[in-house]
Amino acid sequence: MPELRFNVITKDWVIIARERAKRPDQFALPKKEELPLPQFDPSCPFCPGNESHTEPEIARLGDNKGWRVRVMPNKYPALSAHGERTRSNEGMRISMNGVGLHEVIVDHRRHNMVFALMPPPDIEAVLRMYRQRYEECRKDERLEAIIIFKNHGESAGSSVIHTHSQLAATPVVTFQTRMRLEDAIRFYDQMGKCIFCQTMEEELSAKVRILHESKHFIAFHPYAALSPFHTWIFPRRHTPSFELATDEELVDLASTLKLLLARLYYGLNDPPFNYTIRSIPSRDRNTEYYHWYLSIIPRVTKTAGFEMGSGMYINSALPEESAEFLRNVQFPNHT
Amino acid sequence: MPELRFNVITKDWVIIARERAKRPDQFALPKKEELPLPQFDPSCPFCPGNESHTEPEIARLGDNKGWRVRVMPNKYPALSAHGERTRSNEGMRISMNGVGLHEVIVDHRRHNMVFALMPPPDIEAVLRMYRQRYEECRKDERLEAIIIFKNHGESAGSSVIHTHSQLAATPVVTFQTRMRLEDAIRFYDQMGKCIFCQTMEEELSAKVRILHESKHFIAFHPYAALSPFHTWIFPRRHTPSFELATDEELVDLASTLKLLLARLYYGLNDPPFNYTIRSIPSRDRNTEYYHWYLSIIPRVTKTAGFEMGSGMYINSALPEESAEFLRNVQFPNHT
Repeated sequence: MPELRFNVITKDWVIIARERAKRPDQFALPKKEELPLPQFDPSCPFCPGNESHTEPEIARLGDNKGWRVRVMPNKYPALSAHGERTRSNEGMRISMNGVGLHEVIVDHRRHNMVFALMPPPDIEAVLRMYRQRYEECRKDERLEAIIIFKNHGESAGSSVIHTHSQLAATPVVTFQTRMRLEDAIRFYDQMGKCIFCQTMEEELSAKVRILHESKHFIAFHPYAALSPFHTWIFPRRHTPSFELATDEELVDLASTLKLLLARLYYGLNDPPFNYTIRSIPSRDRNTEYYHWYLSIIPRVTKTAGFEMGSGMYINSALPEESAEFLRNVQFPNHT
Repeated sequence: MPELRFNVITKDWVIIARERAKRPDQFALPKKEELPLPQFDPSCPFCPGNESHTEPEIARLGDNKGWRVRVMPNKYPALSAHGERTRSNEGMRISMNGVGLHEVIVDHRRHNMVFALMPPPDIEAVLRMYRQRYEECRKDERLEAIIIFKNHGESAGSSVIHTHSQLAATPVVTFQTRMRLEDAIRFYDQMGKCIFCQTMEEELSAKVRILHESKHFIAFHPYAALSPFHTWIFPRRHTPSFELATDEELVDLASTLKLLLARLYYGLNDPPFNYTIRSIPSRDRNTEYYHWYLSIIPRVTKTAGFEMGSGMYINSALPEESAEFLRNVQFPNHT
């Protein structure tokens, strides 16, 4: 008998399809037989020396030896940094100007660096840059939501090999975000508590889906994980927005994130993945009912007509088994 | 400047990314150089003669020369046909038994038949079987929603080449469905009209996104199409559920669907696609505010971290241009 589980944060029903379930190791990709990448690629716009091939730089972290992390506008932006936020509502045709920010964050100088294998201090530098750009973008009063994300691997939507992240700031709050927020508010009104804090507490006591506990973060597979190895990292401290993370928390998050991504890298042979950092809409300052978090979605299965037509997910892995598998992945310590 | 459009039916914001926009023909796949498939494959469980290799047959349409359309339970069902609908609500862990139906509908006898190229009477037979199974499944009082869908092509989630469709009946109404329904009710309460009928009227008067008009159906790209070539087929007659389609409407739908899929097949070189038929939750009999429809989603682009983190879509094609392109696709008449 399959099991249906309800994800209280996303409000999605998930079919945990035991009949279709695979053992966690069966999701591993075949070992890749690819030519090793060079440390430097003269045709790569993200490589040092090719800075003039990108849009004008917005920010960098670095020292006299050069930059460590570099930010510029996306060359093919989904949103335009210039212009007014104007609306047109004509009957069923509701539209607005596509103003917003769409930035690229080059994570590391080296062309062949794999994000999951980066030393934690290098990941920390990337996270500090995320926070800096978040703070800066929040000042733009045309914008309502800031999403930081990474696409790793071609089937996860990445078109440039050189490791990079992205930030997008949109002039609207989406229906999905608003609905989740409203539900979090209702939970808060009813229970006097943040729904994320409550989830974290219950996960800590259930233990079986926990992947890692550090001083400031808890990483776990959601009870109703939407897909195999779907992972959440919650800050223990109740904070609504990523930009409010302290320096100490970022140091911790860097090593937590590295540990989780390295386990995926070694346990499943470098699967494509996306991660996203979700914060409260950027102009909302109420701190009681929302809690920022980072979500990692390895792209090891496909969605199809059933998911599209029903709004439901099918997860062919049991989160408790996947968690046990990932907890036991051993890997060499590079740093 | 990109444009943001709001889809009033799905409630999604879509970025129509003109800066990234491609001309419609640039979405065409390269011509395939594949070995032709045989008419019959002895190892295919859906081929005539191999009926004993499937789960026990549920229904068929046919005559003394054999079956034309055949239905059986999915061999790897996402939901179990047997058992009670029982709940367990423990704190944040909300779950239930995965009862439900998951059926496979073999569309045609011939192994190498392409659905988009099937003669309309053969498609009509498939649609009649959909309706028959919908009516039958609706009697199961454990179930709340019935979704009929097709996955075509590997990257659209199909694992068997022999053309087939699926029906899934779930014991819950999802949050996504409920939210859209509630919004349709609010529209009805406010405007005294079905939001689908209103959308159809406006599309008919705007004309630019219309793909085809027949006696009983309107096919168009939604104003805020979620992805390139995203197509909706709405019945002109206000009806909440697919099972209420008349015989005459099914004849019309068969030729409309065939026309649209054949244009995609010839215009874009057989892209992978999903289609789904959305009806009102199966136990809801109010007929005023919901309107069934068929949605076709060609899988010509990928979603990534931005979509996951924001709940927003990026469509790199302009619906008005795609519609013009598809209206002009010429193809040989097979029937």
